[in-house]
Parts: sequence; C-alpha cells; structure tokens
Amino acid sequence: MAISLPEIEAALDAVLPRSGERPATLCAAMRWAVEGGGKRIRPQICLAAAEAVGGAAADALMPACAIELLHSYTLVHDDLPAMDNDAERRGKPSVWAKFGEANAILVGDALQALAFETLARTPENRPGTLAKMLAAFGKYAVGVVRGQVEDIADGKKDVPFIYEHKTADLFMSAAVTGALAGGGDDAEVEKLRLFAYHLGLAFQYEDDLLDGDAPCGFDVAAARVRTETDAAIAALNGLPGDTEFLVSLAKRLVDRTR
Amino acid sequence: MAISLPEIEAALDAVLPRSGERPATLCAAMRWAVEGGGKRIRPQICLAAAEAVGGAAADALMPACAIELLHSYTLVHDDLPAMDNDAERRGKPSVWAKFGEANAILVGDALQALAFETLARTPENRPGTLAKMLAAFGKYAVGVVRGQVEDIADGKKDVPFIYEHKTADLFMSAAVTGALAGGGDDAEVEKLRLFAYHLGLAFQYEDDLLDGDAPCGFDVAAARVRTETDAAIAALNGLPGDTEFLVSLAKRLVDRTR
Repeated sequence: MAISLPEIEAALDAVLPRSGERPATLCAAMRWAVEGGGKRIRPQICLAAAEAVGGAAADALMPACAIELLHSYTLVHDDLPAMDNDAERRGKPSVWAKFGEANAILVGDALQALAFETLARTPENRPGTLAKMLAAFGKYAVGVVRGQVEDIADGKKDVPFIYEHKTADLFMSAAVTGALAGGGDDAEVEKLRLFAYHLGLAFQYEDDLLDGDAPCGFDVAAARVRTETDAAIAALNGLPGDTEFLVSLAKRLVDRTR
Repeated sequence: MAISLPEIEAALDAVLPRSGERPATLCAAMRWAVEGGGKRIRPQICLAAAEAVGGAAADALMPACAIELLHSYTLVHDDLPAMDNDAERRGKPSVWAKFGEANAILVGDALQALAFETLARTPENRPGTLAKMLAAFGKYAVGVVRGQVEDIADGKKDVPFIYEHKTADLFMSAAVTGALAGGGDDAEVEKLRLFAYHLGLAFQYEDDLLDGDAPCGFDVAAARVRTETDAAIAALNGLPGDTEFLVSLAKRLVDRTR
C-alpha cells in the first residue's frame, strides 16, 4: 500500500491536540489513548479501500485517522470500571487507571467528537461524498454502541448481533468511508462493505479462538474464521483498483490462529 | 419563528430510534435522555440563526436536532456517579439512575454519534456547506468536553475558560450550523457566532445568579448578564434576515433573573 504505518502514526499525531492546548490533562490523556501499541488495522482497511476502487490512499487519510480515533474512544469506555473494569490496555495503565474515571469518560467523548471533526477534513473530490461518508460513519458509530449495550445486557445475549455490531460495524465504517473517499461508486462501495462485514466476523471468531473462549464452540469458530475470510476475499472480485493489500490482510488475520 | 416547539419535538422524535429497534434498552434510554422537559433553547437558536441570515428555518431542522442530541449526551454523562453523581434530572431519574451506569455511558456515546449522523442529513443547498457545518460542530463538541475537564479538575479552576467552553461552545455550535444551513456567508456566520458567544456567557452568569452561587460575586455576575446580553443583541446588527426571535430570546433569558 502507498501509505506506511509510520505515515499513519504521523497523521494521527497531527490530528491529536498539541501538548500546549488546554486542558493539559485532556491532551495528554487523548494521546495516551491513541498512541502506542495499536495495530492500526482499521485505518489500513480504510486506506486500502480507497486504492481498491482505483483511488489514492492519500485521499482516505482523514477517514483512516477518524476510524482509529473512534476505535480508540470505544476502548477507553470499554475499559471503565462500570464496564469491563480493565486497569491495563496494551501493557500500560488504561486511561481511567492513569487519569481517573471522570477524565476517562470525557476523553472518550472528546475522541469521538474529534473523529467526526477529522472526517470533515477529507478533501471532497466529488460533491455529496462527505454527506455519504458522514451518514455511514455516524450509522456505524451508533451501531458499535448497540453491540456493546447488547454485550453488557443481563440474561441471554444475541452473540451474532454483538459480533455484527461491536466488531464488524467498525470494519465496515473503515471500508465504506475509504471507498467513498477514493471515489468509489455505489456498487464498489457495497463490495467493500461486504468485504469488511465478513472480515470483521472472521476477526471476531478468531479473537475468540485466541482467547480460548468461543461461545459457539471451538470447531464452529474455526470453521467460521475460514468461511468468513473466504467470503471477504470473494467480495473484492471485480473492483477496478489494487486489492492485493486487502487480500493479504485477510490472509494474515487468519494466520493469527495457527 | 416559522417552526414551533411541538415541531422541534416531532423532529427529535423522528430522528431517535424507533421502539422496535434493538437493543430495546438503548432505544428506551436514548428517548428517556432526550424527551420530556428540555426547553430546547439550542435548537431554537439554530433555527432562528437560519432565518437571521435570510434562509428558511426548515433548512436548519437537522442541525437543530443534532445540537439538542449533543446537549442531551453531555447531560447524561455530567450526571454520572463518576461526575456530578446526580440521580435526578428535570424531576425524573437521570439515565444512570434508571438504566444503570454502564448503559448511561453508552447512551451518551450513542447520542453523540446520532447527533453527527443527524447533521449529515441537512439538505446541502450549497456545495461545501456540510464540511463547514461538520467542522464547526466537531470543534465545539470537543470544546464542550474541554470545558468539562477543566470544571472537574482539582485545584484552582479557570472559570472564564469553563464558561466559554462548557456553555458558550454549544450555543455557538447551534448558531453557526444554523446560519450555515440557512445559506449565510462567512461574515453573517461570524455575526451569529458572536451573538451566541455573548448569549452563552449571559446565560451562564444568569444560571449562577439563579443558583445563588456566583464565583465572581453577585454584583459582577448581574452586571455581566446585562453587558453580555447587550453585546449579543448588538452582534446581530446588519443581518439580512429576521432577527426578532433571537433578540426576544436574549431578552427573555435576562428576564429569568428578575
């Protein structure tokens, strides 16, 4: 792909508040949440989606940052004492453990707002693209919360609903906004949405395997990883641009289980 | 103004999730947070700003709903046990008191996402307007969190900074997005931003008076209510549209103290 991981990091650094901005706690905590350790899978999907429709990855740099900011806010709120109560994230104290619970709630709020603000900075090569990007980004941002509410509910949970929303919605947001930023038409955007839907499910079933906790059973989960990965790759057929990165990403994610 | 309060309520009802949507808890809690009791000052500012630049209030209906959803999310999170720990809001249980703390965090998150999604539904009468609206809405959405982080900080607080961001930013967001949706040019949008800035400060000083707790002293706060209200009304000079509603709103807010 035309944009490297260090370039993604540099772009994230540029959209996050400068250290001189106030309040200093908020700036430091927002950077703490975003910097250090993320694999940046969603921004990579976003950038590669722009290339897959024949556009330039650079056109999708702002949506790529936006989706990572959004993903980061969900992790900050997931870790809260009232939610998963995780004091660690990626080997360092989680935001609430380091900056306090109230600040962590607000840091998540600010990261979500900054995600949308960042999305607005996408160069609009075709009229109407931003409205479509924003509609999709907003819908999936609501969707990821729907998945999380179901996940923390008492009683019997709808696991497919949780996977679809908590995981696949962010992947779809990345792919759809990237394809739109790259100038994709409706049919091309839909192919990328479908790719990301299946990839998100494959990713989630694989996470279950890696965690040693598959609600649907180990064999079913292992089979789903493969069928969803195949479906993801198949969805890319007929796209006008370079899909090599997305195919290799899908295969790499499967390899995590071996 | 051409759009009545019941019409604002109907528009909010239409953008909130239907009762059949899942998870049911999220839908019910989002409606609980938004419905019943709000004075809808910010949506009214937004709609009237569109009229003040010579546009139609109807063009600003989506931003008007978006700003109320955003305002509602800030109240849901402000009330949380880790923040103000308020079990009541507008005479009924606050969202966390009724639906639990974890759900309240998520309800706020979903309301913020829905606010941005709603903004995307604004009819774009001029190319580039949505990007400007989104940039402003995003900036002020970050700003309101900056104000809140300063407000909950330990030690000496910068009270003007808190007022400017926690209160005035939402008023400015309403006025700027409304003016943009109404087709205002840069100079007109700036007049409305300035109106909202001063009105927001007047509103906040007056809240201090009504609460009987003015950090700057009662006399100073009472004087500021008047000077800020005057400055707000003066900022409207030279606008091409109907500013009567905004002037009367500013005067009505002052009258709250008498």
